[in-house]
Amino acid sequence: MSIAEKILSRSQKLWETCIPHLSVDNVVFGFNNGKLNVLLLQIIGDTRWVLPGGYVKKEENVNDAVKRVLKERANVDDVFLHQFSTFGDVNRSERFFEGYPDYLWHKQRFISTSYYALVDHTKVVPVADEFSAACEWKPVDALPELVMDHREIVDKALQVLQEQLSYKPIGYNLLPEEFTLTELQNLYESILGTQLNRGNFYRRIMKFDILIKLPKTRKGGAHKSPDLYKFDVAKYEASLKNFTW
Amino acid sequence: MSIAEKILSRSQKLWETCIPHLSVDNVVFGFNNGKLNVLLLQIIGDTRWVLPGGYVKKEENVNDAVKRVLKERANVDDVFLHQFSTFGDVNRSERFFEGYPDYLWHKQRFISTSYYALVDHTKVVPVADEFSAACEWKPVDALPELVMDHREIVDKALQVLQEQLSYKPIGYNLLPEEFTLTELQNLYESILGTQLNRGNFYRRIMKFDILIKLPKTRKGGAHKSPDLYKFDVAKYEASLKNFTW
Repeated sequence: MSIAEKILSRSQKLWETCIPHLSVDNVVFGFNNGKLNVLLLQIIGDTRWVLPGGYVKKEENVNDAVKRVLKERANVDDVFLHQFSTFGDVNRSERFFEGYPDYLWHKQRFISTSYYALVDHTKVVPVADEFSAACEWKPVDALPELVMDHREIVDKALQVLQEQLSYKPIGYNLLPEEFTLTELQNLYESILGTQLNRGNFYRRIMKFDILIKLPKTRKGGAHKSPDLYKFDVAKYEASLKNFTW
Repeated sequence: MSIAEKILSRSQKLWETCIPHLSVDNVVFGFNNGKLNVLLLQIIGDTRWVLPGGYVKKEENVNDAVKRVLKERANVDDVFLHQFSTFGDVNRSERFFEGYPDYLWHKQRFISTSYYALVDHTKVVPVADEFSAACEWKPVDALPELVMDHREIVDKALQVLQEQLSYKPIGYNLLPEEFTLTELQNLYESILGTQLNRGNFYRRIMKFDILIKLPKTRKGGAHKSPDLYKFDVAKYEASLKNFTW
């Protein structure tokens, strides 16, 4: 079956089972080799990429749909998804299916409720679905061309993360259990898109009081072995909720 | 025309002009007499209240729909609306219209994209629309009964505000141009729902460096006339955007 035939055949099923005009999109962030990445699908027969998104069933909570869609489209589950924005501009999506007949499900106007997730990329084995040629991590600072407004959706997710960094910690779901302060600083730098002063970073991150220094160091480098840390999960969780003045 | 006749007559028009399954809701916060209030509509022939919400036209951006709806339902315009969450649980709304025929527009499943606004209540003259018996400010700490999940929507908006207070200032749109530090502290206390220590509040708010002390005081009280302040708008705006580490 060609990709066009697959889409047409899926269209009928979607009209029967899903809520028209509403879609969900996932921005899954992973951190690898000092780079922040986003999980993307490449469209079959196209050079461009797309977020792993989909539709909401008639009797399904939107918060559940987004999890099902991520599993179906990219084989990713057990991740914590945070809703961050709904994209509702006219014509944000439908022109993409211009060559198809007007009754095509995908040709409707869609309002997309979007979610982001932070995952340890080593715990995820992405698998492309039948509509995609590939499912891969792509660095946020060098994204390939994305269709529709998906680039705007990624940018907004990143902006929300940046804003959150200013008042609550990030890292628990993105880093392996044990990490060096340099690795944590690299994560912050890749979210913020800028270099940070090492001393300032150290002082600010220590103020959160969420790190436990381990009685061992990272071996193998050319330089002095750096200290290893892990998160104090109870304090980390508390710092996410403690917004009192 | 009875309220039921009005709703049935409106239903036909809504099917023709609006996107099914999608609604918008507005949580408009105002600050008056030391209390944080929300603008609510009372349903005709009902003791209960509802948020000023509505629907999205077929060729209308969701961000524009929400402004039009607020003007139509409560006579409020020129306010800055921030999208904060989309409520998408099954059955969150449709049971409310149980007595009506199944073809009623309002009986669909609706996913609601919700916005909040912060307004100077003296600049707003709320007027109820034809479906409402009243349009009034109600204090967030003593809300009347709300229909559907509208209480949850207000609570979520308040939670988002509380979280924002921890890293960026609030007040510019809620307070009159000149205010005392006690009034600003009262605003923070009514958003947080707790009393704040006066000295701590003073130190934290001064750190934002957004206030200008005016060369005059508030006259008329029994005690020493308190100093008046206004916001340094440029610094205030900058502090809303400056999230760098």
